[in-house]
Amino acid sequence: MTTLHLPLDRASPNPLHRQIYDGVRRAILDGRVRPGQRLPASRTLAEELGVSRLPVLSAYEQLLHEGYLGARVGSGTFVSRDLPDDLLLASGASPRRGRGESEATSRQGSNLGPFRMNLPALDQFPHAAWARLVARHAHGLSHAQMAYGDPAGLGPLRAAIAEYLRSARAVRCEDDQVVVVAGSQAALRLAAAVLLAPGDQVGVEEPGYPGARAAIRASGAEVVAVPVDEKGIRVEALPIPPGPLRAVYVTPSHQFPLGVSMTAARRLALLEWAHRNDTWVLEDDYDSEYRYVSRPLGALQGMDGHGRVLYIGTFSKVLFPALRVGYLVVPAVLLSRLLEARDALDLFSPTLYQAVLAELLDSGGFSRHVRRMRGLYLERRNALLGGLARHCGGMLQVANADAGLHVAALLPKGMDDVDLVRRMAERGLTALPLSACYVGRRRRSGLLLGFGGSTPRRLAEATRVLGNVLRTGSAR
Amino acid sequence: MTTLHLPLDRASPNPLHRQIYDGVRRAILDGRVRPGQRLPASRTLAEELGVSRLPVLSAYEQLLHEGYLGARVGSGTFVSRDLPDDLLLASGASPRRGRGESEATSRQGSNLGPFRMNLPALDQFPHAAWARLVARHAHGLSHAQMAYGDPAGLGPLRAAIAEYLRSARAVRCEDDQVVVVAGSQAALRLAAAVLLAPGDQVGVEEPGYPGARAAIRASGAEVVAVPVDEKGIRVEALPIPPGPLRAVYVTPSHQFPLGVSMTAARRLALLEWAHRNDTWVLEDDYDSEYRYVSRPLGALQGMDGHGRVLYIGTFSKVLFPALRVGYLVVPAVLLSRLLEARDALDLFSPTLYQAVLAELLDSGGFSRHVRRMRGLYLERRNALLGGLARHCGGMLQVANADAGLHVAALLPKGMDDVDLVRRMAERGLTALPLSACYVGRRRRSGLLLGFGGSTPRRLAEATRVLGNVLRTGSAR
Repeated sequence: MTTLHLPLDRASPNPLHRQIYDGVRRAILDGRVRPGQRLPASRTLAEELGVSRLPVLSAYEQLLHEGYLGARVGSGTFVSRDLPDDLLLASGASPRRGRGESEATSRQGSNLGPFRMNLPALDQFPHAAWARLVARHAHGLSHAQMAYGDPAGLGPLRAAIAEYLRSARAVRCEDDQVVVVAGSQAALRLAAAVLLAPGDQVGVEEPGYPGARAAIRASGAEVVAVPVDEKGIRVEALPIPPGPLRAVYVTPSHQFPLGVSMTAARRLALLEWAHRNDTWVLEDDYDSEYRYVSRPLGALQGMDGHGRVLYIGTFSKVLFPALRVGYLVVPAVLLSRLLEARDALDLFSPTLYQAVLAELLDSGGFSRHVRRMRGLYLERRNALLGGLARHCGGMLQVANADAGLHVAALLPKGMDDVDLVRRMAERGLTALPLSACYVGRRRRSGLLLGFGGSTPRRLAEATRVLGNVLRTGSAR
Repeated sequence: MTTLHLPLDRASPNPLHRQIYDGVRRAILDGRVRPGQRLPASRTLAEELGVSRLPVLSAYEQLLHEGYLGARVGSGTFVSRDLPDDLLLASGASPRRGRGESEATSRQGSNLGPFRMNLPALDQFPHAAWARLVARHAHGLSHAQMAYGDPAGLGPLRAAIAEYLRSARAVRCEDDQVVVVAGSQAALRLAAAVLLAPGDQVGVEEPGYPGARAAIRASGAEVVAVPVDEKGIRVEALPIPPGPLRAVYVTPSHQFPLGVSMTAARRLALLEWAHRNDTWVLEDDYDSEYRYVSRPLGALQGMDGHGRVLYIGTFSKVLFPALRVGYLVVPAVLLSRLLEARDALDLFSPTLYQAVLAELLDSGGFSRHVRRMRGLYLERRNALLGGLARHCGGMLQVANADAGLHVAALLPKGMDDVDLVRRMAERGLTALPLSACYVGRRRRSGLLLGFGGSTPRRLAEATRVLGNVLRTGSAR
């Protein structure tokens, strides 16, 4: 039994349950509470902190879900035993140089079709309010905002993004670690330009995001497939020290394409491995805002005590892709090299949308939009799952549907997903074949089905058509 | 004496004088009229064509200025004798592959200071009309325009740019050869990504654009300095066949930084050299819209019979830099590779400004703006030249002020321009040192003074301050 001494700030925009969550997680990561050690009962902690029991229960629930904590019936809550001990005492690391490139191809194809990947609910976007905001900023654009701008981005937007990431994603950063770029694609390309050199090896999840793979190869670096299981990337499958990898690309919040979220133990093991091997970690947090079984997980970056993680986010999924605004959060030691590379890439980002986004974030309108969309996407996810059960029963096995804007559905052995996707396209359905997400020969056959951009009605109809395509296919 | 058979199209938006100019130039390039051959008198040609004498005189004047034609008093107009004969009979070339990068650093610094380079007249920009246009398109943005877009750009904008370049810049291209990117920096980076591989050698003008140099080096390619004289890049100084250069970067319309425009003979020689050596030519046409001693010169690309030229343009100088919209015109053979590289770089450009620009070009508003600005910049150039003569007389020698938004002014031998620029900065003046534009050790000392972004009054005051700085400097 222990006392946690969690400092709470009631004036902070960071809600109490998140402050408690952060405090307990930090206590675990700092080793102030050890694996197997028992935590105070929620009622006791609530009394200690002088808060109601609700935020404490909420924080414990999240920490249990993320695997930081374990519970035994009747004997309370314990710090999880499968956190690697050595990590809790780890110390500083020295960074490396490099150059390279980045991701995209899976995002091509019919740009509004049913099951289209990575598409938000454009039909539910607050067009009028958005257009008014854009119009006001277009009228108010100053001379300085029309001239050459800061390669790091517009100051107020960088501050607003940092604030949002600190509170919503548990990212640990100063405002000036945020660099605004033209989407997550440009972010990866820029990160790689600073980190990678031709011939470098980069670990990627297997299966993983095809665009990231293509881009790493385009940089002259080589991709090394690292298998993914139900807990995320298999850290034990990474090369033993001294590891040859210059960087590892991961999607911890919502693995692309399978959808699993990396457990706390895996996250800590990955960070420890990266620290030991002076390897950089590229965290692509492309759609973590949308989680349906619990609150969004904290970012891997927030658990990193050694400055090895470059965090990448985008506004494409929350607002709309044609904005072309994304961002990087980089370790301070990389900042000047990154800005130099950005200057050589495209100088800086257009100012109008940056000013618009800064206001949208500061006003709280952005967070309200995320919350509203989360409920909407839950409905769409359920419509898709219902339709798949009704029309494709027995032929598709959904791997994971806890989060994001798509689900991965596995096909029966022997059914060719590339051929199926081709036949689906003939019926106006645009899915991505799971097999296209593998580097190696051993590939599972399946479909990646986006649901964010389609109404429940449209999804029901699309799953009906998909069912017919599946049966005609299997009837051959 | 000869007959030219020029096909004129009175329905074309392409004005008569430009059609005649194009026709005669084409006749010369195709070898239908030979060096030394006499052209019909303007009156005779006007009668042949059934037009007034004015457009013919205008076309001849331009061709004389560009060096295609020579004139001898009393004996009429002749095709220039210093056009390399062999070029006129040259045949098709086979292209090469590659990967690499691009330009920018000189564009940094105080973003509105007097003498700031590459800055248009933001004080004279039609803000209200622009904002109304942006607002209307923001309201009208369709779902398809908010989703993932075409890596080549918005169709209507590509067509509008192609039309503009064909008529205003004598560029020869189909609409689908135009690729819309995030400014000329991104254009160069993208072109290099397709053309250059690490270790490749790229010829650059000496002196030349520092940003291009830095970017080429960042790609792993090496820069080879090629001297520039009063006729442009010295083609005879390029390596003899088989040349080791993968590409040559040039600014033919308005050499950066010295401001000379490449003569027709040099252009033809460069194209012939590039054809012979399978070398790519990167034409950066960054501010050719503004020419004060004659109409803007036709683009080098329009003279290229072998598809060796990649043409790069930007809206930063005509509208404003924070738009971040530029474009490439690429040989058809490179298109698919270029679009693949663009997909890996940043997917596609934001849609809103693309839609706005398409309307602005189609409506003729863009061309009207260019014409209006040309007169304005002429005043500003004259204010700068007047101020330099009045306040800096004898200490600065202006190299060339025929075009663009800046002038290069040479300093007396032994005066350190880097030190001078530092002392100018202390007085709020932001100039670029000429010596920073050299690769080699032999450097001329001078100042690059932008005039586009400052009013005549401000330029008069700034030159007065500059005069004081110069005298205190030389007094040391």
